[in-house]
Amino acid sequence: MATIRDVAKHAGVSVATVSRMINDTGYVHEDTRKKIETAIKELHYTPNEVARSLYKRKSRLTGLLLPDIANPFFPELARGVEDEMQRNEFRIIFGNSDENKAKEKEYLQTFVQNNVVGIISSTNFPDSDMYRKLNIPVVFLDRTADNRPSVYSDGREGGRMAAREIADRGSRRVTVMRGPRHIRPAQDRYEGAVEALGERGIVFNVIQTSSFSFTDAGTWARELFERHPETDGVIASNDIVAAAVLHEALRLGKKVPEDVQIVGFDDIPLSRLLTPSLTTIRQPAYDMGKAAASLLIRLIENEIVDEPTIQMPVTFAERDTTRKAEIEWQK
Amino acid sequence: MATIRDVAKHAGVSVATVSRMINDTGYVHEDTRKKIETAIKELHYTPNEVARSLYKRKSRLTGLLLPDIANPFFPELARGVEDEMQRNEFRIIFGNSDENKAKEKEYLQTFVQNNVVGIISSTNFPDSDMYRKLNIPVVFLDRTADNRPSVYSDGREGGRMAAREIADRGSRRVTVMRGPRHIRPAQDRYEGAVEALGERGIVFNVIQTSSFSFTDAGTWARELFERHPETDGVIASNDIVAAAVLHEALRLGKKVPEDVQIVGFDDIPLSRLLTPSLTTIRQPAYDMGKAAASLLIRLIENEIVDEPTIQMPVTFAERDTTRKAEIEWQK
Repeated sequence: MATIRDVAKHAGVSVATVSRMINDTGYVHEDTRKKIETAIKELHYTPNEVARSLYKRKSRLTGLLLPDIANPFFPELARGVEDEMQRNEFRIIFGNSDENKAKEKEYLQTFVQNNVVGIISSTNFPDSDMYRKLNIPVVFLDRTADNRPSVYSDGREGGRMAAREIADRGSRRVTVMRGPRHIRPAQDRYEGAVEALGERGIVFNVIQTSSFSFTDAGTWARELFERHPETDGVIASNDIVAAAVLHEALRLGKKVPEDVQIVGFDDIPLSRLLTPSLTTIRQPAYDMGKAAASLLIRLIENEIVDEPTIQMPVTFAERDTTRKAEIEWQK
Repeated sequence: MATIRDVAKHAGVSVATVSRMINDTGYVHEDTRKKIETAIKELHYTPNEVARSLYKRKSRLTGLLLPDIANPFFPELARGVEDEMQRNEFRIIFGNSDENKAKEKEYLQTFVQNNVVGIISSTNFPDSDMYRKLNIPVVFLDRTADNRPSVYSDGREGGRMAAREIADRGSRRVTVMRGPRHIRPAQDRYEGAVEALGERGIVFNVIQTSSFSFTDAGTWARELFERHPETDGVIASNDIVAAAVLHEALRLGKKVPEDVQIVGFDDIPLSRLLTPSLTTIRQPAYDMGKAAASLLIRLIENEIVDEPTIQMPVTFAERDTTRKAEIEWQK
């Protein structure tokens, strides 16, 4: 591949002159300009992005840090980010933090070392120094902190909604699966659900879960029905846990939704393919990703952003693990 | 953040000298070396990776091109790649090709412009010029071509295995869901299945599918039972399609596995959470990703690689959408 040196040689000018023209950082005589253009064409030269980023101090690289791309909520989010970045000719360096602070810090360092111009992060440590110290724009995704740029959905309202809908459909012995304590959105959902159940005077049990992993989900589902066999309604911390609860309920010979109603959270694509298909609180993951990318690009380009925190609405995706609300009203 | 210029100024030496020392490209006097080391420590200077890549012509960035991270097979693959890269201090620029050649080409260009030292690609165009022209190592993942570096699983044997197991368990009116024609591994599976069914003299129908998307999967599942209601065994092109077939069969009141047996392909994490849990042909996605990263790193580091194509075995993950083989033998 041709280098800037080859172009300079071919055009009979200095490297600095070629650089000046390519990066538009100073005067280049019209005749010289033509010579360089010809050389660029003849040698099929593509300006090296790294070299440009050094001269111009601006790259088109951004960093994307997610907890775990193998959790089915995140690929949709990542896809939204990537589509918007790609449309605007930005690229993504990608990493999984595993919710591990040291790993996260290491990634942030290498993002900076690779001259990223902005970062999108689904971090559990938004208040950490490692973010405050960065002097490039950061957008928190699926997370928020203070008034800093972020895109997230209304977890508290989501939790309230799940509780309201399951109560309206007749569940009176509810078990709430409480998501990992260190994950803020999981706690928002939990608090919302507890709040709405309390308002209705509905007694509930809590199963504490500590991750969103597939393997653990089955364990908690078994624990749920062993400890609280009388449960007639489950508010799950996400759709994976809900799928495991559904699987376990059917295995125990329970009828869903007749004996037990289940409400998930997220609306991952597979939720509608479960049988019965999963009722869940939908987060607009793809749109959240797009919105975060779009917000970051505006910050990178120094646009004025009046409202840096974007809260997206959740919706009730009514499917077949809950009964029809009408049935309850007729009672 | 401190720059190389700050370090030079602080140490009272030239930028070139600091660069010589950091990049180990020439002699630096011991006294000068100490001064620079002190300056680096005092200023908390981290050598800029981009600057280093320019001087040394080596970055630690690699490119990863996948068809679509939102297809649940790929996050596991990506996670395997990323874990291995991270362990070796390489980073990933990530893109989705959508199996679109123009988009793929654009990504390869920006990978190169960002000085990646190697590329992992799940391309449908391994023979294309755009790969032949690259002068950095490329590893094909979930794809293969000629004798070029690649990591893939044995799709043909996977297809044969699915047909063998479903036949051994008594299905005699099989429908094969043929995966997208332009995706080579999907065709390998299809050919393997057809071959093994033929050897056993089992008559089969074919439903042609053109994508692996969630929304389309439901359409094909409905088409299957409308066109071939007598079907007593389904070999699906992947687990998403299998999940849709299972959902549709149950909706129609069919018993699975008594009336219809279903075998998927991939073993995505959610397969075991379906009810009945999905019998499938397992590809070791995470390990394939790891192996591809490991192979690419060896190529980047100019190690001698005797066997550049790595075929990984598939296995039969027997769960509850197939009957027990014993039952058949007892008949």
